[in-house]
Amino acid sequence: MTVGNTFGSLFRITTWGESHGAGVGVVIDGCPPRLELTEADLQADLDRRRPGQSRITTQRSEEDRAEILSGVFDGQTTGSPIAVLVRNSDARSDAYDHLRDLYRPSHADYTYEAKYGIRDWRGGGRASARETVGRVAAGAIARKLLSHVAGIEVLAWVSQVHTITTEIDPVKVTLEEVESDPTRCPDPDAAAAIGFAIEEARRDGDSLGGVVTCVARGVPPGLGDPVFDRLEADLAKGMLSLPASRGFEVGSGFGSVVMTGREHNDPFIPGDSGPTTSSNRSGGVQGGISNGSDVLFRVPFKPTATIASPQDTVDTSNVPVVLEARGRHDPCVLPRAVPLVEAMALLTLADHWLRQRAVDLP
Amino acid sequence: MTVGNTFGSLFRITTWGESHGAGVGVVIDGCPPRLELTEADLQADLDRRRPGQSRITTQRSEEDRAEILSGVFDGQTTGSPIAVLVRNSDARSDAYDHLRDLYRPSHADYTYEAKYGIRDWRGGGRASARETVGRVAAGAIARKLLSHVAGIEVLAWVSQVHTITTEIDPVKVTLEEVESDPTRCPDPDAAAAIGFAIEEARRDGDSLGGVVTCVARGVPPGLGDPVFDRLEADLAKGMLSLPASRGFEVGSGFGSVVMTGREHNDPFIPGDSGPTTSSNRSGGVQGGISNGSDVLFRVPFKPTATIASPQDTVDTSNVPVVLEARGRHDPCVLPRAVPLVEAMALLTLADHWLRQRAVDLP
Amino acid sequence: MTVGNTFGSLFRITTWGESHGAGVGVVIDGCPPRLELTEADLQADLDRRRPGQSRITTQRSEEDRAEILSGVFDGQTTGSPIAVLVRNSDARSDAYDHLRDLYRPSHADYTYEAKYGIRDWRGGGRASARETVGRVAAGAIARKLLSHVAGIEVLAWVSQVHTITTEIDPVKVTLEEVESDPTRCPDPDAAAAIGFAIEEARRDGDSLGGVVTCVARGVPPGLGDPVFDRLEADLAKGMLSLPASRGFEVGSGFGSVVMTGREHNDPFIPGDSGPTTSSNRSGGVQGGISNGSDVLFRVPFKPTATIASPQDTVDTSNVPVVLEARGRHDPCVLPRAVPLVEAMALLTLADHWLRQRAVDLP
Amino acid sequence: MTVGNTFGSLFRITTWGESHGAGVGVVIDGCPPRLELTEADLQADLDRRRPGQSRITTQRSEEDRAEILSGVFDGQTTGSPIAVLVRNSDARSDAYDHLRDLYRPSHADYTYEAKYGIRDWRGGGRASARETVGRVAAGAIARKLLSHVAGIEVLAWVSQVHTITTEIDPVKVTLEEVESDPTRCPDPDAAAAIGFAIEEARRDGDSLGGVVTCVARGVPPGLGDPVFDRLEADLAKGMLSLPASRGFEVGSGFGSVVMTGREHNDPFIPGDSGPTTSSNRSGGVQGGISNGSDVLFRVPFKPTATIASPQDTVDTSNVPVVLEARGRHDPCVLPRAVPLVEAMALLTLADHWLRQRAVDLP
Repeated sequence: MTVGNTFGSLFRITTWGESHGAGVGVVIDGCPPRLELTEADLQADLDRRRPGQSRITTQRSEEDRAEILSGVFDGQTTGSPIAVLVRNSDARSDAYDHLRDLYRPSHADYTYEAKYGIRDWRGGGRASARETVGRVAAGAIARKLLSHVAGIEVLAWVSQVHTITTEIDPVKVTLEEVESDPTRCPDPDAAAAIGFAIEEARRDGDSLGGVVTCVARGVPPGLGDPVFDRLEADLAKGMLSLPASRGFEVGSGFGSVVMTGREHNDPFIPGDSGPTTSSNRSGGVQGGISNGSDVLFRVPFKPTATIASPQDTVDTSNVPVVLEARGRHDPCVLPRAVPLVEAMALLTLADHWLRQRAVDLP
Repeated sequence: MTVGNTFGSLFRITTWGESHGAGVGVVIDGCPPRLELTEADLQADLDRRRPGQSRITTQRSEEDRAEILSGVFDGQTTGSPIAVLVRNSDARSDAYDHLRDLYRPSHADYTYEAKYGIRDWRGGGRASARETVGRVAAGAIARKLLSHVAGIEVLAWVSQVHTITTEIDPVKVTLEEVESDPTRCPDPDAAAAIGFAIEEARRDGDSLGGVVTCVARGVPPGLGDPVFDRLEADLAKGMLSLPASRGFEVGSGFGSVVMTGREHNDPFIPGDSGPTTSSNRSGGVQGGISNGSDVLFRVPFKPTATIASPQDTVDTSNVPVVLEARGRHDPCVLPRAVPLVEAMALLTLADHWLRQRAVDLP
Repeated sequence: MTVGNTFGSLFRITTWGESHGAGVGVVIDGCPPRLELTEADLQADLDRRRPGQSRITTQRSEEDRAEILSGVFDGQTTGSPIAVLVRNSDARSDAYDHLRDLYRPSHADYTYEAKYGIRDWRGGGRASARETVGRVAAGAIARKLLSHVAGIEVLAWVSQVHTITTEIDPVKVTLEEVESDPTRCPDPDAAAAIGFAIEEARRDGDSLGGVVTCVARGVPPGLGDPVFDRLEADLAKGMLSLPASRGFEVGSGFGSVVMTGREHNDPFIPGDSGPTTSSNRSGGVQGGISNGSDVLFRVPFKPTATIASPQDTVDTSNVPVVLEARGRHDPCVLPRAVPLVEAMALLTLADHWLRQRAVDLP
Repeated sequence: MTVGNTFGSLFRITTWGESHGAGVGVVIDGCPPRLELTEADLQADLDRRRPGQSRITTQRSEEDRAEILSGVFDGQTTGSPIAVLVRNSDARSDAYDHLRDLYRPSHADYTYEAKYGIRDWRGGGRASARETVGRVAAGAIARKLLSHVAGIEVLAWVSQVHTITTEIDPVKVTLEEVESDPTRCPDPDAAAAIGFAIEEARRDGDSLGGVVTCVARGVPPGLGDPVFDRLEADLAKGMLSLPASRGFEVGSGFGSVVMTGREHNDPFIPGDSGPTTSSNRSGGVQGGISNGSDVLFRVPFKPTATIASPQDTVDTSNVPVVLEARGRHDPCVLPRAVPLVEAMALLTLADHWLRQRAVDLP
């Protein structure tokens, strides 16, 4: 970590771009050669992140067509950096003119101004969630790599919105179940309630938060580099780097606090290919290293800061004003946060998989 | 991040050492020159981390005398790397002979063996909490730097153990209050209950978890490097790199989920030296950058994995055995986790403070 | 350093692109905010690197129009990453069909195949000098930064081609003198001889090497980070990363070997603003840190590997064949190497300037 | 690269220590586990670097006993960081009292003061060649790793001192030949002349420079990471990071300049296990990647800056003074530079070997 727009060490991405500039993109360096890759591989995940995909997301309409500019030859990666470009199209900058001179509450307007002394006020600029396009494109490549070389799959879903909770078995839930509803909640009853709650929040000029749960299956024992680059530490960093995320917990997480050691420890039992555990409160990670069980974690996202209600704030001269919200936004980011959580998990796992390969000598 | 024992970019530490080897230590590279520094500056924090400091911590007795081997001349830092060595003294390796051939539940024994194909089984080796000595020594230097150049102070405390919760005002709580009780819980009634609960858990051969809350005061606006090295992302990584930690939340954290946007947003109001907010659900960070308010976060720690009760597990041949726990350990890591949380927060803030200085041109 | 397409730490660039792909480009992360920047700033240096600029360079004709895709708003940098794209236009891939199945001598064809198991054989792919477009674009930004904040200027020129040597005073030579001849040799007599020699080599189907000398003026004392990131060490890395470069020497360089200590040492004398030296055999760097004198170094480039003469080689089946060279190329890379040397010097100095700023506390 | 005392990415070292502090040392992070390692493995190379080993080196007498503090268990590396400590013993600081207030010509006294505003003036402090102890200890571990897993060996020797040149076949020269003379010149006649010249320089109060040539044998094709982390670029950085080194050239180096392309290109010919070349002007590297031939390079070292003759200089108040040299020093660093060059080459190759392993998927 040095300057802030690069993530990973061996499988390393650098993202760039603003909400209302020429476009957004990413350079992936360190992808192994001879992996089959086409633009269609990226598009599947980009379409899950795309605005305007359902009635409960923002109405901003971007096609988000990814162009691979380098690093792929004859349908295969070459080992050289892969540059991906997505042009911005539906960028109505004038819709943001009223934001030029004030700071939206719980947005990054003020902090960007304080840090850089200048701020691209058009739609959040670099702080816009549009920045995550590059992450998702890169995550799709990591997904292909992990699937191909390691049999690892990553799946996330909406497990809570506001007070609506769910009961979902992380061992069994499938992508089809997650994608079967625009809320990306694989519990049909909860999904219906969540959809209703989001619609109601929109009508009310308000917004809702929630929790994304994520599982990585097929992770071999041995990923993670103590003492600082523990697998859960790098996952935590990745998740907290997402817009609107507020926390992270692995396995039993905050819930471990009210258990005793006798209740909480995962007993080892003999498995077919070595020791395994009869419970998974560790969330698949012990001492910072994967233990072969499913890696399990949860990420809370706050209610969208942009709301269609008047709010007290100050302008850039430090004078009180009332903000009348306009522009297009999601009343709840959870459905579109699912591919973001997956992308950061995929990137983290791909990096650690390559790192472990480097030192795991015969 | 590349190999796992280095943390930070400009203020960068590399730790080394195992529980029962020759010692533990750290190299700090990037500390600015001409900072007054003596071994006594390190000892204060090391003593807070030291085992055997009270009846509710492990009885292992280490003096933990820090020797500064380099980087300080005439009582001042020189800009060259500062190496710190703490010799191990009370290392009764033979007390661990029975762990040579089995895997303790919810410890790192199995995962280290799976990753490295070899494991220093004496007292946890590198996975022991003894590894954190180097972090605390380095954190003490970061504390001195931040206090000297930036007026930033970091304070943590035990805010929950098992089901015993507290009401503590993070704006007002003082180091004296925290240190007034061996539990490091600054709420006297809760501290008494926590002390009692820990003693009871020990007698019962069980263990307890809890939550550490941390505040950083005096943080200027502008620290944090979007989009990946957000301040809260690097804090999260630091906290999840601590042994036994299970999660992280900043500001409203997981609690933000059950609030609506209208309830959750922090309104800006005019402050004396620029905009400030009338509430602090953001936890002092917006868009990954500090906003000048107190930085606030919480870290849950699981109940100690070592318990003085028989447990089912397997040996290194994948055969079931019963582990009869021996050795010395803390029935609750929370009191000693407080200086660890502070250390990782101090290191993260020192790094970001230097990073911001580099690019903040006149 | 981890994966190979990133250079620098605080002023950090990541380049991408191949000779005959969609384009080439660079992402610059860490450029301080509020620097005035337009595409024209980049174009000046890109035009000096551009093929087809004179009769003695390759006839490949690329306009090399740089598009800034991000990180600039209202004519100023924002502190967010600056992405630059240059589309490839005159990419006659079919001219390279005959290279698909053989390895050109002293090119990277074989080693790329050996490393990656796949190779973009169209015009050298990633190993083409076309890759340096991104470096030059980024170097132009570093030039603007260094000029603006530090008064540092970097100038390089051709000081030798084959056996034709020059006598040029590095203290006085100007950009105008360098640019006054297509050879970029500021000694008019030598320039004429060099131009003639290059033309002759082309007619003869042969190629020539030479030396670029570079000076950085206005470098303040204090840049460079011992013990590994010495200023000359990072310069050396930058120069050896350039295609066709074969070495590096700073100050007296290899020539120091035949001097004695009494002859070689630079005596300190009192200067107006502190100590200076009466000679500059140190090349402006002592102990890895700039001393305030001009930073001086030299870089040899081998004769172009592509020659218009038949050569013995092997094909991808390890069978001897004769290569009949075609395609367009420079019979001598020296004139176009000048902006490349400057770019790597500028990038190295910008990085170290920011690094020094971070730790140079009041 | 960020702060200057770390080298490498996957096989990564951090050195610390000053000439007259408590000691010097290194932490090696990323060494693969299960490599047999004892302190004796380090001592062999440390003894070659040690002062006082022969009549032509400094008379400072240090035993340089290396203590391994961590990362080795039961005689094998564990994958955890390896800390090595060498205590300083014969540190006569008072011999340097006269250097407290002046700047020695062509030393780092002035630049350290300019950069850090403070300087450990005892024997050069961090800028002393004593700092290289940690590099040599780490290089010995890299040597063992490369020998064990890859069959790579690295050998360097003195090929020139002042005007005395040699004719040595880099393909055939052996360690025994190099070590057979205290000059580390494997050409007996030249060695005799060099020994004589060094003695004469010492008597004369003067000093000499020279060239170290280095070969790496058994390097497989594929090491090196274009475009910036080319193998020769990282070697160049490593060599220019050594005290008193002034340059670097790979293969034909500066000599390539006076050859034409027809003369210089290395023709490919069929080899037993793939293409090879009938000459090796490339020095074993093409396009930044090893090609399977011997890697060959040369490093010039300037005449020792410390001489036993009076010299003009200035004091810390910028007033002219005459320096009467005292203290112990080498009149020619070349013999002791040989293990330093080997160490940096070994570290660079070990790092790239691990890097290539990470991405070289089946």
